[in-house]
Amino acid sequence: MADLAALRQAVAQANWDLPKSGLVTMHSGNASGYSPEDDLLYIKPSGMDYDQITPDNVVPVRVSTGEVLASGVRASVDLPHHLFLYKNIPGIKGVIHTHSNHATAFAAVGKPVPLCLTAIADEFGAEIPCAPYVDNEGEHIGEAILKYRNRAPAILMGNHGVFAWGDSPRAALKAAVMTEDVAKTVWLAMQIGEPKPIPPEEAEKWYDRYHNRYGQSGVK
Amino acid sequence: MADLAALRQAVAQANWDLPKSGLVTMHSGNASGYSPEDDLLYIKPSGMDYDQITPDNVVPVRVSTGEVLASGVRASVDLPHHLFLYKNIPGIKGVIHTHSNHATAFAAVGKPVPLCLTAIADEFGAEIPCAPYVDNEGEHIGEAILKYRNRAPAILMGNHGVFAWGDSPRAALKAAVMTEDVAKTVWLAMQIGEPKPIPPEEAEKWYDRYHNRYGQSGVK
Amino acid sequence: MADLAALRQAVAQANWDLPKSGLVTMHSGNASGYSPEDDLLYIKPSGMDYDQITPDNVVPVRVSTGEVLASGVRASVDLPHHLFLYKNIPGIKGVIHTHSNHATAFAAVGKPVPLCLTAIADEFGAEIPCAPYVDNEGEHIGEAILKYRNRAPAILMGNHGVFAWGDSPRAALKAAVMTEDVAKTVWLAMQIGEPKPIPPEEAEKWYDRYHNRYGQSGVK
Amino acid sequence: MADLAALRQAVAQANWDLPKSGLVTMHSGNASGYSPEDDLLYIKPSGMDYDQITPDNVVPVRVSTGEVLASGVRASVDLPHHLFLYKNIPGIKGVIHTHSNHATAFAAVGKPVPLCLTAIADEFGAEIPCAPYVDNEGEHIGEAILKYRNRAPAILMGNHGVFAWGDSPRAALKAAVMTEDVAKTVWLAMQIGEPKPIPPEEAEKWYDRYHNRYGQSGVK
Repeated sequence: MADLAALRQAVAQANWDLPKSGLVTMHSGNASGYSPEDDLLYIKPSGMDYDQITPDNVVPVRVSTGEVLASGVRASVDLPHHLFLYKNIPGIKGVIHTHSNHATAFAAVGKPVPLCLTAIADEFGAEIPCAPYVDNEGEHIGEAILKYRNRAPAILMGNHGVFAWGDSPRAALKAAVMTEDVAKTVWLAMQIGEPKPIPPEEAEKWYDRYHNRYGQSGVK
Repeated sequence: MADLAALRQAVAQANWDLPKSGLVTMHSGNASGYSPEDDLLYIKPSGMDYDQITPDNVVPVRVSTGEVLASGVRASVDLPHHLFLYKNIPGIKGVIHTHSNHATAFAAVGKPVPLCLTAIADEFGAEIPCAPYVDNEGEHIGEAILKYRNRAPAILMGNHGVFAWGDSPRAALKAAVMTEDVAKTVWLAMQIGEPKPIPPEEAEKWYDRYHNRYGQSGVK
Repeated sequence: MADLAALRQAVAQANWDLPKSGLVTMHSGNASGYSPEDDLLYIKPSGMDYDQITPDNVVPVRVSTGEVLASGVRASVDLPHHLFLYKNIPGIKGVIHTHSNHATAFAAVGKPVPLCLTAIADEFGAEIPCAPYVDNEGEHIGEAILKYRNRAPAILMGNHGVFAWGDSPRAALKAAVMTEDVAKTVWLAMQIGEPKPIPPEEAEKWYDRYHNRYGQSGVK
Repeated sequence: MADLAALRQAVAQANWDLPKSGLVTMHSGNASGYSPEDDLLYIKPSGMDYDQITPDNVVPVRVSTGEVLASGVRASVDLPHHLFLYKNIPGIKGVIHTHSNHATAFAAVGKPVPLCLTAIADEFGAEIPCAPYVDNEGEHIGEAILKYRNRAPAILMGNHGVFAWGDSPRAALKAAVMTEDVAKTVWLAMQIGEPKPIPPEEAEKWYDRYHNRYGQSGVK
């Protein structure tokens, strides 16, 4: 059994960090965290102000069944997409959804964020892809993510926003934050010229360095 | 009789939230709240710094007559437009006016914010329309809002700014905040391509989900 | 004799408000205040961090002679321009200089901020003009301001930045803040279309209303 | 021997100022400081949150050998570039690396920030150059900086970001902050026209004034 109190805390923290990082306006984003050995995730309550979220009120959900294990509180309406990703992307333990402005601008025109910055090579190792528009019924969002994702731990959803993930709520948050940050820089670059692509073999050097030699041992 | 102390508090809070949400510069916005059963609204004092506003100094006004019920303080010069909207849009209890930058940029070129984001479908259920320029005399602003509004709880006024409303000062604030936020994303998208419209039948699905299945019971 | 302690306080406050309002980066702006009956101004010390400024260390200067009346501290290098404006624009008691980003962008391309927003009509009653580039020797900056200014209490200096003024340090600050704010909105508008000009006779209505009917009695 | 406690403090402060100045997202920047007489630099620990940095945990490195003089902590992966700059640019005692958005946008399209603002003449005395893309192996980054730099204390690295330096960590920070600030203004200007260049002889006047007559004695 995982340390569920720590997971509740991490999920609350990732939700608190959404407005602090400038990724959300009003209630337009949500974070969850997953403990596979407990078949359990915690997720933001629906439509709740971020400053009202506490480790105690994040909503527990049985992942295998989708059953909400708390009464009197609704889980984020995006719960089905979080569930789908945990079941279908191996090894992930954190998911974040946002409508962050620059990334969503790429989504509104149906374009990926091209691999033209060393920061994109570092963090994503590929362009950040953009899935075509899908509606919010059934598994349409989850299925589109699976179909269009690449090695990058984030994807743009056409006309909609961003999904990002990682091996913890904090790692998912970092992917969401970096998605917006590099989308902003690339957007800026597109206004003053043609961003120069980084060739795949060059990108690989940065990705390898960042994922294998960076950070204190055990942290990224 | 409504809880007028609570209404004073809500009006003060909505005014405090204007600079906190980045919607106003210096004094360029105002919020009011309305109690129909008391024939009373409270509104920002004219030209007062937001941090000087308190529940005690928001200005009470008799809605049916427009009479200011406090001495020694002037109501916002935009009072006539607030009065007009409360009398002419059924069910609203909060009104906000801002010159928020991205929304006002659309107003400066006389363009609506097109329905190309799921967030716009969620919150507004339609494009955010733009009324042509009118001056600030008589009921010109209120009449233009009535004439050009659609189902969305916000409208752009040509060369001028934003009016937003809702069933409480807080709901009006949310509409004003979301107007600026989606205007920003659409503005960004327009610089890197052609934002793809969301067809009306698709927009309807998002609007319905958001207005009927979202949030904790009783809150949005 | 004016209340010089209050003037020192107002000058310190206007300088503190420069970074708080997002108008300056590092040390790139300065504020002063003037007491005509004392032939005295107070101005920011040169190159000092804004959070080190106090009412006690703003630099007193005899306006008629330009003599610095404190030892061991240098006045802002922009002192000559402040002096020139106080001697040549009737009635002003506050001057602010900034390199605020959007306004300075107009200055870099030598364009005025056109009168296309009701907020510009309200505050400035005219376009915000742009003087051609001049160097920083002698009275070149002051003379260019006099030559190219209109009724607006602010002007852009080609390739350089903004000067703004008013009947107090706080009024000058407001003019500087509004210059950046409207420059931002107009800049945004120019990216998505052609901002529609407000005809002079329409602008006059807004200007008159704002300057004669707005605010609490005696304040703006 | 220099005051090494003061240098540790200055390096911690410069790293703290990176997020405070809006130059970094997550961990995307680093600052160091150098004491030539001690053959020692202090630099940010790799991948550490800025709010976890203290004067005690910045990483000491023997400059002549590149040896890390602390156990259990990794220096920033950008250490080799800091070392190279201290050994090859005479007189510098502070180096900063960032991916700040506007400056990096110029880098993504391989363009310098042109000398079209008096603030650029003041601080840099030249355009801010852009080196072509290089990978992160060996001395490639350091060598490209040496080859493409001009008198300005900052350079853009193609597809990558910014390096800035000065005679202290604080001076390097100022160069990094001003690089982003002028890049932003010039970027804004490029969207509304053609920024007018400042001729070299005019730029020289501003540079001379700023470097010889500005600030309190002994400070910039």
